[in-house]
Amino acid sequence: MPIPAPNLYPDFNVVRLSHVHLNVQDLTASKKFYTEILGLQISDEDDKNLYLRAMEERFHHCIILTQNSDEVSDAPPDIPSVQTVAFKTYDEDDLDKAYAYFQSKNRPVAWVERPYQGRTLQTSDCHDMPIEFFHKMDKMPAIHQQYQLYRGVKPLRIDHVNYFSYHADESVAFWSDFGFRVTEYTEDEATKRVWAAWLHRKGGVHDVAFTNGVGPRLHHIAFWVPTPLNIIDLLDLMSTTGYLENIERGPGRHGISNAFFLYITDPDGHRIEIYCSDYSTVDPDLEPIKWDLTDPQRQTLWGAPAPRSWFEEGSVFHGVTPRKSDLKASPIIAP
Amino acid sequence: MPIPAPNLYPDFNVVRLSHVHLNVQDLTASKKFYTEILGLQISDEDDKNLYLRAMEERFHHCIILTQNSDEVSDAPPDIPSVQTVAFKTYDEDDLDKAYAYFQSKNRPVAWVERPYQGRTLQTSDCHDMPIEFFHKMDKMPAIHQQYQLYRGVKPLRIDHVNYFSYHADESVAFWSDFGFRVTEYTEDEATKRVWAAWLHRKGGVHDVAFTNGVGPRLHHIAFWVPTPLNIIDLLDLMSTTGYLENIERGPGRHGISNAFFLYITDPDGHRIEIYCSDYSTVDPDLEPIKWDLTDPQRQTLWGAPAPRSWFEEGSVFHGVTPRKSDLKASPIIAP
Amino acid sequence: MPIPAPNLYPDFNVVRLSHVHLNVQDLTASKKFYTEILGLQISDEDDKNLYLRAMEERFHHCIILTQNSDEVSDAPPDIPSVQTVAFKTYDEDDLDKAYAYFQSKNRPVAWVERPYQGRTLQTSDCHDMPIEFFHKMDKMPAIHQQYQLYRGVKPLRIDHVNYFSYHADESVAFWSDFGFRVTEYTEDEATKRVWAAWLHRKGGVHDVAFTNGVGPRLHHIAFWVPTPLNIIDLLDLMSTTGYLENIERGPGRHGISNAFFLYITDPDGHRIEIYCSDYSTVDPDLEPIKWDLTDPQRQTLWGAPAPRSWFEEGSVFHGVTPRKSDLKASPIIAP
Amino acid sequence: MPIPAPNLYPDFNVVRLSHVHLNVQDLTASKKFYTEILGLQISDEDDKNLYLRAMEERFHHCIILTQNSDEVSDAPPDIPSVQTVAFKTYDEDDLDKAYAYFQSKNRPVAWVERPYQGRTLQTSDCHDMPIEFFHKMDKMPAIHQQYQLYRGVKPLRIDHVNYFSYHADESVAFWSDFGFRVTEYTEDEATKRVWAAWLHRKGGVHDVAFTNGVGPRLHHIAFWVPTPLNIIDLLDLMSTTGYLENIERGPGRHGISNAFFLYITDPDGHRIEIYCSDYSTVDPDLEPIKWDLTDPQRQTLWGAPAPRSWFEEGSVFHGVTPRKSDLKASPIIAP
Repeated sequence: MPIPAPNLYPDFNVVRLSHVHLNVQDLTASKKFYTEILGLQISDEDDKNLYLRAMEERFHHCIILTQNSDEVSDAPPDIPSVQTVAFKTYDEDDLDKAYAYFQSKNRPVAWVERPYQGRTLQTSDCHDMPIEFFHKMDKMPAIHQQYQLYRGVKPLRIDHVNYFSYHADESVAFWSDFGFRVTEYTEDEATKRVWAAWLHRKGGVHDVAFTNGVGPRLHHIAFWVPTPLNIIDLLDLMSTTGYLENIERGPGRHGISNAFFLYITDPDGHRIEIYCSDYSTVDPDLEPIKWDLTDPQRQTLWGAPAPRSWFEEGSVFHGVTPRKSDLKASPIIAP
Repeated sequence: MPIPAPNLYPDFNVVRLSHVHLNVQDLTASKKFYTEILGLQISDEDDKNLYLRAMEERFHHCIILTQNSDEVSDAPPDIPSVQTVAFKTYDEDDLDKAYAYFQSKNRPVAWVERPYQGRTLQTSDCHDMPIEFFHKMDKMPAIHQQYQLYRGVKPLRIDHVNYFSYHADESVAFWSDFGFRVTEYTEDEATKRVWAAWLHRKGGVHDVAFTNGVGPRLHHIAFWVPTPLNIIDLLDLMSTTGYLENIERGPGRHGISNAFFLYITDPDGHRIEIYCSDYSTVDPDLEPIKWDLTDPQRQTLWGAPAPRSWFEEGSVFHGVTPRKSDLKASPIIAP
Repeated sequence: MPIPAPNLYPDFNVVRLSHVHLNVQDLTASKKFYTEILGLQISDEDDKNLYLRAMEERFHHCIILTQNSDEVSDAPPDIPSVQTVAFKTYDEDDLDKAYAYFQSKNRPVAWVERPYQGRTLQTSDCHDMPIEFFHKMDKMPAIHQQYQLYRGVKPLRIDHVNYFSYHADESVAFWSDFGFRVTEYTEDEATKRVWAAWLHRKGGVHDVAFTNGVGPRLHHIAFWVPTPLNIIDLLDLMSTTGYLENIERGPGRHGISNAFFLYITDPDGHRIEIYCSDYSTVDPDLEPIKWDLTDPQRQTLWGAPAPRSWFEEGSVFHGVTPRKSDLKASPIIAP
Repeated sequence: MPIPAPNLYPDFNVVRLSHVHLNVQDLTASKKFYTEILGLQISDEDDKNLYLRAMEERFHHCIILTQNSDEVSDAPPDIPSVQTVAFKTYDEDDLDKAYAYFQSKNRPVAWVERPYQGRTLQTSDCHDMPIEFFHKMDKMPAIHQQYQLYRGVKPLRIDHVNYFSYHADESVAFWSDFGFRVTEYTEDEATKRVWAAWLHRKGGVHDVAFTNGVGPRLHHIAFWVPTPLNIIDLLDLMSTTGYLENIERGPGRHGISNAFFLYITDPDGHRIEIYCSDYSTVDPDLEPIKWDLTDPQRQTLWGAPAPRSWFEEGSVFHGVTPRKSDLKASPIIAP
């Protein structure tokens, strides 16, 4: 098994994926998409930034959108770009422990200022992919029972991010070392290499996942909804309000994770998954489920392959040049 | 508009599609599929025949399966074949009126014996496609509130059949003349010909539909279920019990009819649609909805095209040689 | 059996329940309730009237709300009052046939002007309860696929009305005579009298129902929604937007009709049912289902009795004084 | 605020509620109920014991049923009785730490043998209520994607237990001290005492809850299902298979926890909740939501009060005599 044993006593304690900071070309168009179609709620906004949260979230933001510019992205304007992905630690002390940990791994470490957050550690993983950690964030009033506010797909919370990695074994090893636990993974039988892996902190199937491909890039951000009917409602809404081209893949059931899914793209091409039907993974001795790369049902239990775009397109990180994976592409791509 | 005006006062009164009589190569395999996967209930069976009904139906059968043989089908064994499609009339008298009507149209007419049914008229439409009419059928106890019997997709009733026609304008004209009313249709802009049309008697979007193609053949039989979750449950069940290859298309939402759909095939290749989200069409002055053949959303509101098999494969009728349509194929086919 | 045989060939042909015209004390408050909570769409409005339709309806209105005044109601302002309930005929000729029919039954008949409708016949039933018939109504653009318009409970169509009758046997006999067919009924074992009955024209369980009680009064108007989740969403919405007191009964499953239901009241106290899970009744020889008055599952399959208000409160008709039934009240009332 | 601050660094680490061991009068009747109605899967059984798990669980059991006898219960046979409720620790070491912890609190401690489990610590809480802790349990093959096995309400996992406590403040203080965190609670305004509180370890609203009443007793065991439709299906099934009397309360939405719920009783009277719509509570600084005891929406967002039985009936623990709470009963009980 190419999967490292879980580190049950990591140097510091991460609670969960917290939020993603995206650059967008047209803040007005993105605001419309994220509030009316996705149905996120605005926590705050100014000329250049929009702070959003999902319906059950009681902290300030799970998505930050910022007007794109040369300052925030070195990518061409038609390539969607990400500033950072941030994780919440269990306690304030965990930030200091994380600082020391990443320093010991020869990663760059810096304390940065982030609005509505406490102390924030900026660092990166083994492939120079930016990561931020913080513990404190401003609290917001609970709105999960204000049902008149529910709109669009009625998202309850951010669930996970999925990354392209040019070497998923390395990514999995690096992230496992500070406590992320693999729940499911795909192995390339020929090379015994990890093709893709799902790792969690919060007790669901994943907070992060890594798939071999041109990376590091962000593959998608996922939001949790309660039932498949939310996803069907979203499809009906998008296909009759000018967002037909933003439907990329689905609806379907992943073999891996058993999730009922839909993949859509925002106006910049950032990919978003709508997701339900997770299972509990809080037991530290729950064994990872292994899938064979040649099993078509790992991708879609019901058999339909993913489109080529799903394997190829992603969002880049500022200052990070993606590299190709040395593993061959998945054999199961829709023509 | 190429659609004929509805005939509000037809010569005889048809209530609805009643049942379909299919030939099958392996009655045991088909029984398993129709009872455990589709979830139909057995009304009666013998060595060669199986009579089935859906959960809210209180008459004897909506599907008859018969062991295939040279007597019942002149098609090669690998081509799925149909004995007949039958319709229920409003009254016993309507059978005599139908006899006279079809005779006047120079169609063959005969009274035939059918188990569990009263007098049954055997005739055919303008393309020699077999049709049967009857009024009386044996009644069965109501089981719609015996929830422990619900299995598979939990089908409530047979809803409609869809035919390939080699000349859909002719089919629509013929069926409209005895009272079937068009609810939606696709027009080929270039020729002003009907590409496909949906016609009803019972107050839903259709009892029958005709699509241009190699015909006359049966394209599919549809069963009505209450919610999209029935369809998702069926996909999960089929994909984990050896029926993955029997999932052909979907789930999706048709633009036409607004139905949430799934197309599957039985062990012989007879196509079955699972269907919900119909609307009421009881008003005789409800205007047909016209769709353009080049509008991809007519097929699937959410944009995914149908696979080639869906346009090409169908079930043949005994003694009837299908012909090609002179209209070109739909431009919207998945590669 | 106390139920009359269905009249398969009535003097005139009614297609379905069309609309209900209600008086309201505060048109602004009612508009908010009917558009934001029920989610009906406005077809037209002026200072005193609001015309509404449900999402799949393509004719002008299914509900008319009119500002209450002495002219439109002789009831005290705190008693909800109804102007009329209207039915659509199959053809224009059916109006003349209906005129002659009701005249022959010694009922008052008059042609009245109704906005957006063609010729409208005003008459009344055997208990002086107002009825209107018309054939033509202005058509509206289809909006069932404009999903951004869906709000509140997302109602698809008006389904039926339920009346209190001071003598349900008489009501059932009168309405059966012009073609309404009983689908289910409750019999009082002691007297062999009908306690309540459900009658249809359109092929569902009912267009109208009659229950013994102080009548004639309107018990409720029902709207059809596709799934129980619409009803759960409505409960969440009403209970968090100031409409908690307007939730009267449910959610539950009726034994009779098998409907999943919720009963709510509008700001005036007019009762509205939200309803799904109907079955098809187009077969004229479908036998009525008989329920025993002492069977608690006829009311609610799951066993919870209805509150007293549900048996006692209703909306009155202008100029009609309700009378008590001589049958004793149902033994199954929540304490 | 009467709620203690959460103990972020408890002496030992509990992962989640694991299982409940119930005594039953008729193992055959209980087996039928738990497998056909609840839909749990049998992991093992012998003449006197039945081991069950839910569909996504990969450890051996979440419910143990044992044939009742004087040895296992000192309660009269008509009073449902419980042997123990067991919790899984994060690691094997945590058992030793728990042993020392409970010993230091002057609670009885003992290592006991439990089939299919590793070392098991038997102890009790401040009110002598039995608790067991273990870390290791036999693993079972994953069946969450074997959809043909899903039956009854299709339960995915055990979620929580709810206890009657004769002094909820004491219970909350005791359990908080070893790391259970309060997510929501009801305060009695007059006395500033806790009426009821919900506490978690696994990142949901609760693993355990305490309500003032005659205690310690088990109020209910809850199973998690994905959608409200599972609950509606269960109601339909129970009400038509002889379990109508076993439906106690619901369906409804709790204000507290926002859960969509149904309460049923097993053949012995053990109460079971079917539950969905939880929210994530993994953040250690998520503030508890406070409810007022006089707010009717805390119990049921939609307004219907709970029946008296729900406040009074529960399952007793062997060797533990329940005592009355000194707080007055909730003012909101259905008449």
